[in-house]
Amino acid sequence: MPKKLQFLADRPKAIPAISRYGAYQSAGLKMIAIKGERLLGDLRVLRAMGAKGEGVVRPAFSETDMAARRWLAERYSEAGLSAQIDGIGNVLGQSTNSGPRLLIGSHSDTQPTGGWLDGALGVIYGLEVARALAENEATKHSAIDAISWQDEESRFYGCMGSRSFCGDFSSETETGLTDKDGVGLADALALAGLTGIPRLRAADHHYIGFLEAHIEQGPHLEQDDLRIGIVEAIVGLGGIVFDFSGQQNHAGTTMMAGRKDAATALYTLAHRINEEFPKVAGERSVWTMGRAVLNPGAPSIVPGHAELELQFRDVNPMILDRFEEVAHRLVSEINAKGGATTTARPSRVRISPANMDISFQRHLSEAAEQHAPGNWRSMPSGAFHDAGVICNVMPSAMLFIPSIDGISHDFAEDSHDDDIVLGCQVLATAAASILAAA
Amino acid sequence: MPKKLQFLADRPKAIPAISRYGAYQSAGLKMIAIKGERLLGDLRVLRAMGAKGEGVVRPAFSETDMAARRWLAERYSEAGLSAQIDGIGNVLGQSTNSGPRLLIGSHSDTQPTGGWLDGALGVIYGLEVARALAENEATKHSAIDAISWQDEESRFYGCMGSRSFCGDFSSETETGLTDKDGVGLADALALAGLTGIPRLRAADHHYIGFLEAHIEQGPHLEQDDLRIGIVEAIVGLGGIVFDFSGQQNHAGTTMMAGRKDAATALYTLAHRINEEFPKVAGERSVWTMGRAVLNPGAPSIVPGHAELELQFRDVNPMILDRFEEVAHRLVSEINAKGGATTTARPSRVRISPANMDISFQRHLSEAAEQHAPGNWRSMPSGAFHDAGVICNVMPSAMLFIPSIDGISHDFAEDSHDDDIVLGCQVLATAAASILAAA
Repeated sequence: MPKKLQFLADRPKAIPAISRYGAYQSAGLKMIAIKGERLLGDLRVLRAMGAKGEGVVRPAFSETDMAARRWLAERYSEAGLSAQIDGIGNVLGQSTNSGPRLLIGSHSDTQPTGGWLDGALGVIYGLEVARALAENEATKHSAIDAISWQDEESRFYGCMGSRSFCGDFSSETETGLTDKDGVGLADALALAGLTGIPRLRAADHHYIGFLEAHIEQGPHLEQDDLRIGIVEAIVGLGGIVFDFSGQQNHAGTTMMAGRKDAATALYTLAHRINEEFPKVAGERSVWTMGRAVLNPGAPSIVPGHAELELQFRDVNPMILDRFEEVAHRLVSEINAKGGATTTARPSRVRISPANMDISFQRHLSEAAEQHAPGNWRSMPSGAFHDAGVICNVMPSAMLFIPSIDGISHDFAEDSHDDDIVLGCQVLATAAASILAAA
Repeated sequence: MPKKLQFLADRPKAIPAISRYGAYQSAGLKMIAIKGERLLGDLRVLRAMGAKGEGVVRPAFSETDMAARRWLAERYSEAGLSAQIDGIGNVLGQSTNSGPRLLIGSHSDTQPTGGWLDGALGVIYGLEVARALAENEATKHSAIDAISWQDEESRFYGCMGSRSFCGDFSSETETGLTDKDGVGLADALALAGLTGIPRLRAADHHYIGFLEAHIEQGPHLEQDDLRIGIVEAIVGLGGIVFDFSGQQNHAGTTMMAGRKDAATALYTLAHRINEEFPKVAGERSVWTMGRAVLNPGAPSIVPGHAELELQFRDVNPMILDRFEEVAHRLVSEINAKGGATTTARPSRVRISPANMDISFQRHLSEAAEQHAPGNWRSMPSGAFHDAGVICNVMPSAMLFIPSIDGISHDFAEDSHDDDIVLGCQVLATAAASILAAA
């Protein structure tokens, strides 16, 4: 049994039985074996594209990103899949088999200073699972499609590829979109040769669901000596930017009573948030005020302007609502005191918590118990993923492998080879099980 | 009588009578008249050197600064003074008269984005007072020396010129000194042609005292509809840099209990300082936390490091001591809570509060009451000045004129022409009175 299996308050208490679990057992699916060296070999080839020291620099639409996507399309073809790069940069490898069709993948673009695994892990897992099932007599007729979504890491727009696939990337959003250096998306698409190429749409396909594997990006599996995480839900995320508008002044000649100090208002609000949020937080709520800027930011000048960014996450949307309410109440409280004026605006569109499919979780759990008995757990995902978008149009689920020291979005990111291989084996077994039960 | 005359707690309650005030009256010193147009004309010529829009860019030892100093030496010579630029850049114009000798001036270097008056006002006042007294039959034998100190604005070292004059700029301090761009002082001196030139020393001169005029750099005179401020004391200043050392982490995957969030410690400490300082503050104490930096400063990353700079000022050194004690107590309080580790170090050498000479204040007050009856006040200086250095070696005093909207260290800094002229007239009358009483 898994250690520390945790349930979310707002999901069904009982996981439904898998109706055709008997079929899975009798079909001998235990025998499906991925090829660990092939998997690691492909991951290492991908790592070399944009390699910088131990890390990888392969932002969406960069030359290395597009080279990696073309390389991936070739691997899909080699594996017998029908490969294409769509008009937003998603790479899809489609099985030529018929029957229940399962989509597996993640994203191969990276952060500006990214780790070598991150989304690349789940992309190569999709390829390897398709290959492994095709090589097994019992599953060779299964329909596994493999995918690499584009721009999960938000060079232009977070999860742009999966959003485009789900019809959640409107032309209004797209028009005039630029990266932080001012490069336009339209120019990036043209440079990548994608202008005018059709874009994949979920509505044109008939998937029974989507599976995504990813590194944990946190320390919890490693700390608890576990090797597999099955994601129950991807936490929702809200953000608020607070603006503090005061009066810039000389720090020696302006008396305290006459000040409108933007920094004082910022410190007070941040401190009050840290005092009040725990009163309404859930067990796994997190909130962060990691960006604070004072203007002009000199020790001998009373700041006339300041900005503070708050981000909060939970699997329960009601808790996100409560955080927002508390934040706005505290702004009113601070404005009532005088001094600088504080205003609040959303820093981003709220991301709703995304529950993973219960049945898929059960398949993943059974596969984990088979390959790593007692060494897995259910857990929320504190980071967002493409599966959090895709789950709006089809059943979706996620599998985590441990991150060494919990390091993520950093050149130093890494996972142990045996964990990488084990994760793919669990995913392959679960995929076969899901297809057998479909 | 002055409006809102305020006394400092730690100065003598009674201002001593001026023993030879009768001599001042009988000598007809009321008749000393400065020439307003000549004063304004010289100020405008100086403004043109390094002019940028309405403001002035004339940092110490820059080409424009040295050109302005050579121009000033010529004006001193024209006024009959014996002019020299010393080895640190101070410009001195010495009277050839004998008898009690009074030094008058300020600094002609500016902030990187400075206003046109600031120290330039007091420099040209010194020149004009020397001229006005030389042109008056009753005072033509007075010995007025005029000066422009170097680098008051801290390109290399705050009040470097006046400190050098007072023997408070050691070769240890000087060695290896650079500006914020890494330019060495030795190179700047060489470029300015000052290498090997002797430096002025207070010990080589016999002044009865020093007078400095300056713009107020605050809004108080203007707000109270007053035209002259007589400085009672220059506030002392202390500073502390707080370092917060935590653990950088992903804001989604790191639970609150496991965090060592440098920002949280910073917000708590800043808030607690704002709660506790008022309990030990004096009536005119000020404290500012105008610099706060989070690292890496991204909304979705728990900051691993942060820095906060606190500055505090008061005329009473015991209050500065109490602020330091409270700050260190709060650091211990916050460290006891766990999370990030906070350390404190002085951000600068403590500047002690500097009391202005009581007798000189009386002469200035009498002159202010003569030329602007009821429209002046005594007040502390919240900003530091060369007089705060010079007062350690001779009696010193300061006069303020109103700053429009209290703006200072900004291109928009300005004062009304009639206030500029009035301030110089008051200073000239006071200088004659001080010399007559000496």
